[in-house]
Amino acid sequence: MSDSLVFTNAVGEAIDALVADMNPAGVFVVADTNTASLCLPQLRSASEAIGGSSVLVAEAGEEHKTIDTAVRLWRSLVVGGATRRSLVVNVGGGVVTDMGGFVAATFKRGMPYINVPTTLLAAVDASVGGKTAVNFEGLKNEIGSFAMPAATVLSTRFFATLPREQMLSGYAEMLKHALLSGPEALGRALAIDDPAEVAALDAFLPVLRESVAVKQRIVAADPTEKGLRKVLNLGHTVGHAVEALSIENGRAVPHGYVVAWGCVVALVISHMELGFPSDVLHRFAMYVRDNYGALPASCDDYPELLRIMSHDKKNSSPDSIVFTLLSAPGAPVYGHTVTPAVITVALDIARDMLG
Amino acid sequence: MSDSLVFTNAVGEAIDALVADMNPAGVFVVADTNTASLCLPQLRSASEAIGGSSVLVAEAGEEHKTIDTAVRLWRSLVVGGATRRSLVVNVGGGVVTDMGGFVAATFKRGMPYINVPTTLLAAVDASVGGKTAVNFEGLKNEIGSFAMPAATVLSTRFFATLPREQMLSGYAEMLKHALLSGPEALGRALAIDDPAEVAALDAFLPVLRESVAVKQRIVAADPTEKGLRKVLNLGHTVGHAVEALSIENGRAVPHGYVVAWGCVVALVISHMELGFPSDVLHRFAMYVRDNYGALPASCDDYPELLRIMSHDKKNSSPDSIVFTLLSAPGAPVYGHTVTPAVITVALDIARDMLG
Repeated sequence: MSDSLVFTNAVGEAIDALVADMNPAGVFVVADTNTASLCLPQLRSASEAIGGSSVLVAEAGEEHKTIDTAVRLWRSLVVGGATRRSLVVNVGGGVVTDMGGFVAATFKRGMPYINVPTTLLAAVDASVGGKTAVNFEGLKNEIGSFAMPAATVLSTRFFATLPREQMLSGYAEMLKHALLSGPEALGRALAIDDPAEVAALDAFLPVLRESVAVKQRIVAADPTEKGLRKVLNLGHTVGHAVEALSIENGRAVPHGYVVAWGCVVALVISHMELGFPSDVLHRFAMYVRDNYGALPASCDDYPELLRIMSHDKKNSSPDSIVFTLLSAPGAPVYGHTVTPAVITVALDIARDMLG
Repeated sequence: MSDSLVFTNAVGEAIDALVADMNPAGVFVVADTNTASLCLPQLRSASEAIGGSSVLVAEAGEEHKTIDTAVRLWRSLVVGGATRRSLVVNVGGGVVTDMGGFVAATFKRGMPYINVPTTLLAAVDASVGGKTAVNFEGLKNEIGSFAMPAATVLSTRFFATLPREQMLSGYAEMLKHALLSGPEALGRALAIDDPAEVAALDAFLPVLRESVAVKQRIVAADPTEKGLRKVLNLGHTVGHAVEALSIENGRAVPHGYVVAWGCVVALVISHMELGFPSDVLHRFAMYVRDNYGALPASCDDYPELLRIMSHDKKNSSPDSIVFTLLSAPGAPVYGHTVTPAVITVALDIARDMLG
């Protein structure tokens, strides 16, 4: 089971072709207040299917990715007469594709849905792979399901209006994919000096395609994250802890930034435990330093970071934190347990490198 | 993908063996106020796993099979520290197995669950096949998912306290399975004069096993109801309409009764359209008449029954209602469209036969 991915900047035509193929009993667009005003007007004129659809709008923002919003969306589907043979089209960032996917996956036990990601982060990560969810009781993606989209339409045309840091945030997941892919892909990823400058260009579409293909291969081999798919957590163990810390401290940072820093820490540990080549580690760390800056944590934060890591849903004991590591670019190892002492040393080294 | 089914009246031991195999990080029992007082005390002493579990109790009754109750159950799982590697054990009738299954299937994108049905209807139908759901906005099973239980423990030991009409209600689904299975199975099913007398006996366990195997075979071939699984809707097109009508009229009848009457109507149509043998039709109708009584509808109700049928989620046009029919016992045909005129004639004939 794998996604059907369409890479094109003729988004409206691509959607119409998919809808013609699927011949659904009605089309329901899920958008948020941002994409409803910024992306839908052009899509409605470019696509007959979107033009003739019912539009369901959720409040924008992670804080609205809730069961309450899902209930409102389900209710709109009922009122709109949606059936199992209707189609949901999610137009938005990760919040919209995660939540719209969950709503579709559970309406009448599952109706088909298409993702049209409008941010680089959603294009390269959330919109592909069939993880759907809403947050619950302050816990991220606590309620959800695995349900593959019928298709994802990937373009760069919505990226032009994104703030610079959102573009960089998305690119961090692409760096992660390059690390998982191999030395050539990594070389190409690190050769792009300023990703925010180029990500909205048509020429970026093949770069996006190569990166998404890495995730798609991994997801196809392990759709429900029994094993291999865990390699996609590269950089996320420390990353999630830094993200949580930054929220606790009232200085939230974009998700991709913590992934970039988390990858540096994971590579330091990979060097210490698995002999990951130090020259590649250094090159990667310099790239992250230049684009994402210093890791926003001091040694005073280590106990709290370790505490958060040990509470991650993937871990069961505070004395051994589970990491995805690399013995070399393209050679990931998942489920490697690391001691707090090693993590502490790695955090020191990474902070030093990120300056 | 198919359920693992365990048929035994040593329920506690069977649960403990399953739990030992699965080695979950914690066991969470979902029960309702009835099963918590009637079934759990004996299970807690017979099973170490249930004895040591956290128990989540929902209010009993179809009217509590809601997203609100699901939210309360999810919250209890969060508070109890459930992880993806914990186990949910649903102890109850169809409301509990449907809702507990949905809660487990969507918690952290899916944790394993076991069903322990305590009613004949749940044992023979709801607890097997992986359809999970809650009701929504007055619509039955509107929000849900397909998620196979890790196992279902089927016994007759909880049936002894069931009211007679609940026992007959469950037996109607067994009659349906016998019709789908073939002439031998149908002969054996019709040879049981008073199902309510025998269903709680140990000797009934092999009968239950044979009936559930029919459903399991069909579900295994089509888990998400793309095609073949629709044969399990035999008797449900007219049945659901009679059920809805009986609720509208304030004289609600048990689900299985409408399935039994619905099967008679479906067999009449099958005789008219597909040459289903009339002697079998008569024998079946006499059995239903003797055990379930007359069909509670007059010819004045036909327009309303036809209106309800045409609004069923499986139908798209009021002029052709979709039925599962049989050309003979064991030879089902799904997706057969029938005109209102034929349905009207069949209702007349069936009402006549059911006296």
